[in-house]
Amino acid sequence: MVEYNTIVIGSGIAGMSACIYLRRAGIKTLVIEGDVIGGQLNKISMIENYPGYVEVSGSDLMMNIFNQVSSYDTDYLYESVNRVDLDKRVVFTDSGKYRYKYLVIATGRRNRLLGLDKEEEFIGKGISFCASCDGNLYKNRDVVVVGGANSAVSEALYLAGICKRVYLVYRKGELRGEDILCKRLSSKDNVEVIYNSNVVKYITDNEVVKGVELDSGKVINCECVFLAIGYIPNGELFDVDKKDGYIIVDNNFMTSVRDVYACGDIVYKNVYQLSTAVGDAVNVASAIIRDNGVRE
Amino acid sequence: MVEYNTIVIGSGIAGMSACIYLRRAGIKTLVIEGDVIGGQLNKISMIENYPGYVEVSGSDLMMNIFNQVSSYDTDYLYESVNRVDLDKRVVFTDSGKYRYKYLVIATGRRNRLLGLDKEEEFIGKGISFCASCDGNLYKNRDVVVVGGANSAVSEALYLAGICKRVYLVYRKGELRGEDILCKRLSSKDNVEVIYNSNVVKYITDNEVVKGVELDSGKVINCECVFLAIGYIPNGELFDVDKKDGYIIVDNNFMTSVRDVYACGDIVYKNVYQLSTAVGDAVNVASAIIRDNGVRE
Repeated sequence: MVEYNTIVIGSGIAGMSACIYLRRAGIKTLVIEGDVIGGQLNKISMIENYPGYVEVSGSDLMMNIFNQVSSYDTDYLYESVNRVDLDKRVVFTDSGKYRYKYLVIATGRRNRLLGLDKEEEFIGKGISFCASCDGNLYKNRDVVVVGGANSAVSEALYLAGICKRVYLVYRKGELRGEDILCKRLSSKDNVEVIYNSNVVKYITDNEVVKGVELDSGKVINCECVFLAIGYIPNGELFDVDKKDGYIIVDNNFMTSVRDVYACGDIVYKNVYQLSTAVGDAVNVASAIIRDNGVRE
Repeated sequence: MVEYNTIVIGSGIAGMSACIYLRRAGIKTLVIEGDVIGGQLNKISMIENYPGYVEVSGSDLMMNIFNQVSSYDTDYLYESVNRVDLDKRVVFTDSGKYRYKYLVIATGRRNRLLGLDKEEEFIGKGISFCASCDGNLYKNRDVVVVGGANSAVSEALYLAGICKRVYLVYRKGELRGEDILCKRLSSKDNVEVIYNSNVVKYITDNEVVKGVELDSGKVINCECVFLAIGYIPNGELFDVDKKDGYIIVDNNFMTSVRDVYACGDIVYKNVYQLSTAVGDAVNVASAIIRDNGVRE
C-alpha cells in the first residue's frame, strides 16, 4: 500500500493552497481529484475580490496556483475516491489503497438543482451552471438565469455582455447580491429581473431546452437555463460530524476525527469565499506541519 | 464630526482586504494609516506562498492590492490615531474626530528588539528589520541576522545573495523555519549559522554599528544587524480583551466590544500568514456587511 504523510482530497483553491504550504515544509503529500483540477474556480468568469488581483479569471487564477503547487513536485492522482476508512486511515480508489497520517478534506460543494422533471437529462443540453463555460454557445440568444444571490447576479451580468436577452428569475422580492453587482446589473438594458417567481417546468423538444414555465403561468422562451440556486456540500464519503451536510471543524480546522482536517467550501462556517478557503487551508496545513514537528 | 459606517485602522494586507469587500458592498469606509500603506508587507522581499503567485515581491503585491482598493474610491486618512473612544464610537486623530458604526482594528504587530543598550538609537545606523529595504546598503559587506524562525531564515537567504558573509545567530540548537527555506540556506556557502548563542552587546563607534558580541564572548565584526526575533502586537490603543497583547475575537472576528472587529496579525490566533490575514479580513467585512443589512 502506498503511504503518504498527508492526503488531500480535492484540488480546488482550498486543497491546492494547503498543498503549497505542506510541500514547502517537505511533507510527502498526495492530491486526489476525481474531476478537473481547480474545482468551482473553473466556473468563475471574472474575480475582482481576491486580494492581489484587480481582476483575474477563475481559470487564470487556478493555473497560477497549479503552477505554484507543481513547482514543489507534488503527487497527483486523477481518480475518484470510492471509500475512506477513517479508523485505518486508508483512502480507496479504483487503482488501489493509499494510507495517510493526516487527511485533508477539500471536496467543496456542488450546484443545487431545481428538482424538476428532465433536469438531470438536459444538463449540457440547455441547462448549465457556468456562464463563463457555456455562455458563448448562446451568443445573441435569449437565456434564463435562476437565483438571486451573488452567483446568480454575476452569471446574469456575464451573460448580458454576450446574449440577446437575459431573464433573471428569483423567488424573492429583492436580489441578495453585492450592492456593486446589483447596481451594475440594473444598468443593463437587456436584462429583465422577474421577482417572486419560480421555474416549475422545463419546456423541451427531444433534444434541447426551449424555455421555462413559471409558477405564474408565464412562459419564457430561451435556449439555456443557468442555475445559480445554491450548493450541496460534497461530504457524503466522510463519517465525521456535520451540520446541514457541511463538516464541523475546530479552531485548527480539525474535524471530529483526530488528524482529519477540512478546509474550504465543505466546512460549516459563515463565509464561503476564495479568500476564506485559502485562509482555512493555510490554517490546516500549519496545524499539520506543527503536529508533524511535535511527533517526529 | 465626520461620520463613516466603518473605520479601518491600519492599511496592511488585512485592512486593505477588508476594504475591498466593504467598498464593493457600497459601505462608506475610511482607512486610517499613520505609517506607510502596506504595513509589514513592504518589508517582505519575496513571497512564494501566497496562493495565486508563484512569486511576488511584498511591495508588488501591496501595490496590486492598493490599486484594487483605490478602484472603489476609498477614503484614506494618513494620520496616527491618538485615541479611540469605544463607548462613543469615535476615533481621534490630530486633524479631528471620526465617528463610526463599525470599527476594524488591523494594526498588525511591530518588530521586537533585543533590549540592549544603544539599540533604539542605532536603528537605521546598522540595526535593521528589513533585508529587502536595507540589504543593498551592505553589498559585499558582512552582516548578522538574529533569529531562527521563517522570517530570520528568509532574511538570511536574501542577504546571502548580496552580502559577503552572513552570520545567523540563533539562541536555540535548531532552526525553526520551513524545511524548504532551511535547506536552501544550508546550500549557501557564505552563510554561517551560530547556534545556542545570544547577542549581548552592540559594538559601535559614534556613528554606526561595527559588530556584535555574543554571550560566548565571541565578537563578530559586521556593518549591519538584522533583527528577526518576533513581534509585539500594536494593540495598546484598544481597550478590548487580549491575550499576550493580541486581541481575542469570536468566530466572526468580533472583539469583546460589540461592533468592534479585528483581523490580521493583531488577532490572537494560531497562524500569522498573509493568507490567514486575508481570510480574517474577509470574515470581518462579511460580518459587517451582513449586520448592516440586518439593521437597515
